[in-house]
Order: sequence, then C-alpha cells, then structure tokens
Amino acid sequence: MGQFNAVVGDLDGNAGKMREIYDRAIREDVDLLVFPELAVCGYPPEDLVLKKHFLKECTASIEKIAADCPDTTLIAGFVETVGNTSYNSAAVLHGGKIIKTYRKVRLPNYGVFDERRYFHSGAEPLVIDVAGMNVAVTICADIWDMEWLAGFLKNSGPIQLTVNISASPFHYGKIQIREDVVGRCARKLNCAVAYCNLVGGQDEIVFDGRSILADSNGRTITKARAFEEDLLVADIVTGTDGDVKIEPLQIASPQPVDLIDEIYQALVLGTRDYTCKNGFEKVLLGLSGGIDSSVVAAVAVAALGPENVAGITMPTQFNTPETINDAERLATNLGVEFLTIPIQPVLKQFDDALKPVPGWQSEGIAYENLQARIRGTILMSLSNSAGALVLTTGNKSETAVGYSTLYGDTAGGFAVIKDVPKTMVYKLAEHINRISGSEIIPADVLTRPPSAELKPDQKDTDSLPDYDLLDKILKSYIEEDKSAKELVELGLPKDVVLRVLRMVDKNEYKRRQSPPGVKITPKAFGRDRRLPITNRYSSGSDRGIS
Amino acid sequence: MGQFNAVVGDLDGNAGKMREIYDRAIREDVDLLVFPELAVCGYPPEDLVLKKHFLKECTASIEKIAADCPDTTLIAGFVETVGNTSYNSAAVLHGGKIIKTYRKVRLPNYGVFDERRYFHSGAEPLVIDVAGMNVAVTICADIWDMEWLAGFLKNSGPIQLTVNISASPFHYGKIQIREDVVGRCARKLNCAVAYCNLVGGQDEIVFDGRSILADSNGRTITKARAFEEDLLVADIVTGTDGDVKIEPLQIASPQPVDLIDEIYQALVLGTRDYTCKNGFEKVLLGLSGGIDSSVVAAVAVAALGPENVAGITMPTQFNTPETINDAERLATNLGVEFLTIPIQPVLKQFDDALKPVPGWQSEGIAYENLQARIRGTILMSLSNSAGALVLTTGNKSETAVGYSTLYGDTAGGFAVIKDVPKTMVYKLAEHINRISGSEIIPADVLTRPPSAELKPDQKDTDSLPDYDLLDKILKSYIEEDKSAKELVELGLPKDVVLRVLRMVDKNEYKRRQSPPGVKITPKAFGRDRRLPITNRYSSGSDRGIS
Repeated sequence: MGQFNAVVGDLDGNAGKMREIYDRAIREDVDLLVFPELAVCGYPPEDLVLKKHFLKECTASIEKIAADCPDTTLIAGFVETVGNTSYNSAAVLHGGKIIKTYRKVRLPNYGVFDERRYFHSGAEPLVIDVAGMNVAVTICADIWDMEWLAGFLKNSGPIQLTVNISASPFHYGKIQIREDVVGRCARKLNCAVAYCNLVGGQDEIVFDGRSILADSNGRTITKARAFEEDLLVADIVTGTDGDVKIEPLQIASPQPVDLIDEIYQALVLGTRDYTCKNGFEKVLLGLSGGIDSSVVAAVAVAALGPENVAGITMPTQFNTPETINDAERLATNLGVEFLTIPIQPVLKQFDDALKPVPGWQSEGIAYENLQARIRGTILMSLSNSAGALVLTTGNKSETAVGYSTLYGDTAGGFAVIKDVPKTMVYKLAEHINRISGSEIIPADVLTRPPSAELKPDQKDTDSLPDYDLLDKILKSYIEEDKSAKELVELGLPKDVVLRVLRMVDKNEYKRRQSPPGVKITPKAFGRDRRLPITNRYSSGSDRGIS
Repeated sequence: MGQFNAVVGDLDGNAGKMREIYDRAIREDVDLLVFPELAVCGYPPEDLVLKKHFLKECTASIEKIAADCPDTTLIAGFVETVGNTSYNSAAVLHGGKIIKTYRKVRLPNYGVFDERRYFHSGAEPLVIDVAGMNVAVTICADIWDMEWLAGFLKNSGPIQLTVNISASPFHYGKIQIREDVVGRCARKLNCAVAYCNLVGGQDEIVFDGRSILADSNGRTITKARAFEEDLLVADIVTGTDGDVKIEPLQIASPQPVDLIDEIYQALVLGTRDYTCKNGFEKVLLGLSGGIDSSVVAAVAVAALGPENVAGITMPTQFNTPETINDAERLATNLGVEFLTIPIQPVLKQFDDALKPVPGWQSEGIAYENLQARIRGTILMSLSNSAGALVLTTGNKSETAVGYSTLYGDTAGGFAVIKDVPKTMVYKLAEHINRISGSEIIPADVLTRPPSAELKPDQKDTDSLPDYDLLDKILKSYIEEDKSAKELVELGLPKDVVLRVLRMVDKNEYKRRQSPPGVKITPKAFGRDRRLPITNRYSSGSDRGIS
C-alpha cells in the first residue's frame, strides 16, 4: 500500500509520487500496489470536478500512470468520467493499461463530505484475480455498512482479500473505529483486508494515514505510519484452513501513544501542509504569553522549524510584565525570532480619531475590540511585507462562544487550534513540555488564570463560565446536537447552559469569516457543521425545561 | 397561494404568518390554500435538521397549524420525520389534521443546494381531491424533469391541477426559466399549475416570490408580486374541452421592468432581510466617492430608509477633494448621516510603529493594505459602539481577482454587491438615478476612472484589465467553468486570460473569509461555488493552448 500525501489538483505532482512509490514497490517485487481514494487528484477536489477540462486531465493522468507503471497490478483512485457523469472510481492498472474500474457505490454526503454533489453511484461489484487470489475492490464508505456489502458481493464467490481505498479524515479516536470496521469486514467476508488511507492536510481536514492490514480473523496485523507517507508491504497468504494471513515485510511503525499525541501530530501536519501547499515557507503569530499562542507557536515550530516562525508581542498598558516576559521566554525556548511592537501609541491615535464620534467611549467592548484589531492589522502588515502566513491562536471554546474579535485575533490564514477545546489546549501544552523533556512552555503559562488583557484585571471568567463546565456544555451541544433540555437533564446548570447556547448560535457570523483550521474532533466548525447565520431558532430558549 | 417571507428557524413567527394568511384566504372563501416549500421552518434550514429537538418542534408546529386552520384545505412545506429519517415534505391539512403528506423525490444537491445531506427521497406520488378536482402535489425540483414526472404520475389518472411548492433562489433571468418549466409541466400533464414560491432574503440567497399560475396550455396567466409577500387568489375552471383555465380574482401585480430592475430589487430585499432578520436596525458603510459605495448606499437607503444609514469617509493624503466631495454630495442626496474621520494621523502612527521592522516600507502593497485595514477597523469600531451592521462595498469583479484587502474593505457583516460585476454596478447606478428621477449618484462618479486611492494617481487599470474585458473573462470562467483554452478560442487575449484565471484561483482564501452577500448571477461565490483553498490545479496554465 502506497500511503502518500496527494495534493488537491496537483495531477503532475501526485502522478510523480505514485511513479516513485511504484519504483520502490517493483524492487520489492509486489503483485499488487494500492493507492488511496482519488489519489490522482487529491481529496476532496470539490468543484474542480465540475470543470470539464479538469476531468479530461484526470483521465489523461491515470492513463499515463498506467503506461508508466506496466510491471505489476495497481489500484488507484481517480475521477472517472462517462459523458456528463462522474464517478469516484478505482482504476485497476495492468500491462500499461486501465483494465477495469470499480465505481464507489456508497457516497457519503454528511459531515465534511459532499460526494453526491459530484458523483453518481456505481452499481457493480468488482473482483479481480491477483496472483491467483480473488480480490474485491471497494472504496471508503463501501465497507462501513457490512450488511449492505455482504449482499452486494454475494454472487462474487469466495474472496481472499478486500482492498479498500480510502480518504478518511482524522478525528481523535477514529483509528479505533476504522480498525473495528476493517475487522468486521474481514470476519464477515472471511478475507484479509488492505485498507489504504490518504495522508496529508487539506484545508480543514487532515488525513492521518495509518493504513491497515487485517487478517481474516479481523485482527489488525500491521499499520502504516501515522501522519507520514509510507509504503507498507506484506505477503498475504492463504492457509489450508481457509484463513488468510498477513505477513508484514517490515517492522511495525511507531504509532501515537495516546489521544493527545495523535491530536498534536494532526495539528503539526495540518499546519505544515496548509502552509507549504499554499506556497508559504514562513509563519508569524502574535505571542501574548498565554497558553493558546504558546501551544500554536510550539506546533508551528514542530511543523516548520524555528527558523520559519516569528512571534510578535504587541503590548498595551493592559499587558502585565509577567505575560510579556513569558512570551519572550517561550520564543527563546523555541528558538524563534521575537519582535516587540508596542501598540499603545496607535491605540491612542485611533481613540483620538474616534473621540469626536457621538457615543464613542475609551473603554468597553468597542475599545477592547479595537486593541485586538490593531494587533490583527500589525500582523497582517508584517505578513504582507514579509510574505509570511499569519497563524491565529483562538481555541474551539472561544470560537464557539464568539469570545474573540473579528478582524482582530481572528485575522490570519490558518487557525491551528480552532477545533481544540481550551481544556485540551492545556493537555497539549503539557504534552509539548513532556516530549521536549523541558519546560518549553513556561510553568506560569499553564497556571495563570486566562485573560485577554484588554482592560485592567480582566479574566476570561468575567465573561465565560469555567472552561471545564464550558467545554462540557459545548461538546454536548456542538458535537452531539443535544438540546438545552437534555443538557439540563444531564445535571448542567440551566442558566449557564442557556447563556452558552445563545452565545454559540449568535456567533455563527464570526465563524463564517474565520480562517480554516485542523479538524480534530468528531464535529468541527466549518464544512462539518453548516448552520445559517440568519437563524431565529433558539437552541438557548427554555422551551420544555421545567 | 400564500407567498410569504418565512424566516429560517422561526417556527412560531412563520406559523403566525400562515395563520394570518389563512384568515385572509378564508374571507376569500378558497377551497385550497398553498404555502411554499419548508414554509414551517424557512429554507434552507441547513444543519438545524440534524437536531432532533428541532425536528420535534417542526412536527408540533405543523400539527398546530393544522388545528388552527381547519376550515379549508391547506398544503404547506415542512420537515417530516419518521424515526431517524427526514423528508422534505408537503403536508395536506384538512379539518384540523394532517390528512396526507407528500415526500419530495427529486432532491437537488448542486449549486446552493445540499438536500441529500438532510433528506431521503420519497417514492410515492400524491393526488388529492379538492372541490372535485384532481390535484397532484409536487415540491420544487420534482417538476423540473418532466420526463421523469410524467412517468412518476402515469398511474395517477387525469390531473386538473399540479401544485408545486418551491423555494427557488433568485438569479437574474430565472423567472423566464421557471415560467418555461411550469408551462412544460402544464402542457405535458394537460393541467393547470400553481407554482408557489418563497419570498425573502436568507444569508446569500434571495427568494423572489413571483408565484405562477399557468393554464393547461402552459400560459402564465398571472404572477404574484416580486420580492414581496402576496396572497394570489384565482378560480381554476375546467372547460368542456378538457382545458383548465385560470381566472384571477385580482389585477396582475407590477413586475420588474428588466434584468437590472430585478437585480436592484433583489439587492434591496436581500439587504433589508439580512439586516433586520439578524436583529439590526441601522447600517453604516465607508463612502469613498466611488461607484461601488455609492450604489451600496443607495440600496441600503431603499432597504432601510435614510434614517438608518450612515456614511463615513476616511480620507488620507491620497484621496482627492473631488472624491471626498462626491461622497458628501451622495450622502446629502440620499439624506443619510455623514461622518468624516481623517485617518492620516493613525496611518502615520502605524507606520512609525512598523518602521523598526526590517523590510517595512512606507509605500507598496503592505502600506496600501494598511490604509484599507485602518478604515475597516474604524468602521468596526463604530459598529461595535453604535450597534449598526457594517456593509461592505466590494463588487464581484474585484472579489473574483482579490483586488481587495482582507480585514480592510472586506470587513463587515454583509457584502451587498459581492455578486454584481463592475460593469453591472454602473448599470445599477444609472437605474438608481433613473427611478429616483434625479442625479442621486453624482454624474462624476459614473464617469471618473475607478481608483482605490491608496497611492498617488492610482487607477484600477494599473493592476487590472479594463472591466469590460475582465467581466467577460470572469463570466466565462466562473459561471460557465470554461478553461483558459476555451476562453482564448473565444478570441480573448491569452496573457490577460491566464493572468486573470490565476488571480481568481489564488484568492479563494480571501473569499472564504468575506461576508455573505446576495446571489444575483447563475453562479455566485460562497456555497454556490466550492473550491479548495489548497489547490494546485492551475486553470491559468497554458496547457493545450498553442
């Protein structure tokens, strides 16, 4: 299985990678080489699929790959076009030609998926002979409903191997779900399963690789690397008892040690790929001395190297020497460039410009937002001047309730931790210090009560509930679509629940204008959760709550 | 037909409106009252449909409407839920109860539509008896493929009337397409057609109403009001020859006189509804003395009244006295509040703060963007301070090529003309002056070469092709998905085509963070056109062009 990092739209680049992997696989003398779903064009190609010229080039690309890779059997995902109809297909390549195609039947159209916008469903199973073995070809969701698949394949005779080419987006814990799916498929069909996943970051999504080889007992025998490209080679052997065994030719790759580790790795890959695939080498971000910007800076350094990261602190009179010091210590610990640009004089000039306007006040929400927008403007000016991408540092908790300033702290190209709840940001900080073996993120940063420092003695808890409670409410409401009534029945305090739900609902407009960031939870903001801005349905009403 | 402005999520408000219309219809002694698609919850409800509590309340709402409106037959759109399955359904209400439901079969999942994300398809036709007439019930796209519909209804016996409840988004010229669809349906089934459309603005979409009554010869006999609520009443009479005639009980409503008029009305309604449905009364915008902000200001005044609009001019040394004067004259002509906030001192203070940074220059793109961001920050500060919504003024041409500053001129809640190409903005300006019978928008503004005024003697044509050429390229590329090769074959200059296509592709990130605005073309940016930000497919390459 050639688990590689396909770039959306990069037909030549993706084909080049597939040829390289083919060369390596040929040296291993494989009978079958499998690439992920839509490997030819990357996943998801979105409305590129509506461009006829793009479809033509996709077809040309898979034909050229076939011609360039004649010496074994390949299976690779591509967009198949017949007249005006497109399919999410797997091409079987052999002897320099496309000898068969399989068209995905089960097209996901939920969560981040829009496949029915683009593709028609196939209707025919495909079982091919590879080195005397019957190999069923399937694509991603096709194996997620085994009742259906068993019926679909019931006239296909005995199968020794099911190949599943996938582009399965990461969220924490998903690998276990996949292993269960693969295991069920293996047991139901009494065959080995080769599950080949994509790897790489694509806008809001990260594909985590970890392609799976399972034997006919449904046991995962080996997995490809997590969050990296890999070529996973194994012998698939039919036993005399009808069992199909997996005999890997390489030692097992190290896997993430826990959920926090896999989230960390997802953030690093997502940040690296968004930055580099969009043509940037360098990033910059505001360093406040707080936990969010500290974690984002550490992730950026892991993704791009310290030489490609710059931290900027932009103090006003409301920032304490402690936080400014922590920002500088963090920068020193990470080895990144550090810049101080005091914004008090700019703030004063803005305030002077606005003073003649009736109702303007040099304190309050508007004045606090102004400080954040001056910082956003400074960062964007540096970005425009130096060609570096601005990373934003807002977490999921504040993104959810709109505890942020639009065009202020939300200004930037990529929102690294926008899907990471605040309580999980702390765990990431501890993880970062643990794996570095030193206090990269100063201990103070982990213990100081969070503050936006936009007015004297401000604390997040002035405006928000404690993050433990907030994150509990947000998880139930956002990821599980629970109602206020159900949350209260779970024992959560009614007044807080209603307030939080209203904040989430009414801040959809801010999220709509925020940059993309890495999805790490089962339901992220963005394409995963599509709510109208104009929306009078109040989840935060007390209907039905006694 | 009760063509009304349903608000997404406003179950109580929508039910209230339906009851009011019912009372009026009862006074007209109607046998059948029809409401639009998903009238109960508004269209599109998006991921609200994934909330079980929302679905429960939808069901309760349609049941209550049935109970409240017992004295005739009603047809109304609602979300029907059976176990874990939702349908986009029409309820037939009679005698205080839901007596039948019809489940939409043809679920659009293209353009702005995502119906297969939410709904299952129905499988059964529904023909009901109303006052001795056979009435087929259909929903929106069900009548757009007549071959399919004729087959679907072939065992339903003769039909005298087809009711179609719709939520058909506006784009210019679409009414003609709808009349053709309705006419084809009438002729094919030899029946009258009552096509009941929604009206109102919902985020990026405007529904234009104009519900249609056609006789069995396929002629549109009457239409409901455009861009307004209406109750359209008619007798439907079966002739002895088998023809079905329409006899309206009211005189025909005035309709838009041409495409520009309907676009203008769409912008006005879209702006009013976005503002008011989101709880704002007042709007503010930057007035530059240019054509874009002049047109947006005039639309805002038509939408909300001059007392609810404020114009702000924020000059630097690069703004000429002529444009500043034109901004003020426009404000006077429109009767709106006008504020001048010079930003030169703020610009200087920012420049001073940034001067110590290596590479910073007090001219060039970064310095130009800085000016736009200062203006964006001022407008947002006023917005936060006064509770008014900021309207942005970018047109489709500059939105397409990214001739804008993110968090600068794109900063705001609603982008009134984001789908209006620059060449059409001029036509709108002429239209506005024509219907007002005076030179509301000063003549200078229409004739002066467009300039962003961010450096001395700047003209849009320094960076962009002439707008006539640019808009031609953009229409073919964006709305028709043509390739560079096809554009060149149409006779457009190769170098300009390639440059423009590259600009469109690489500015997706800016559009993703821009506010919503009214869709008026067949393909708008936003949910209508979903392209990845991370995208190495270059439509602007010269592949295949000799």
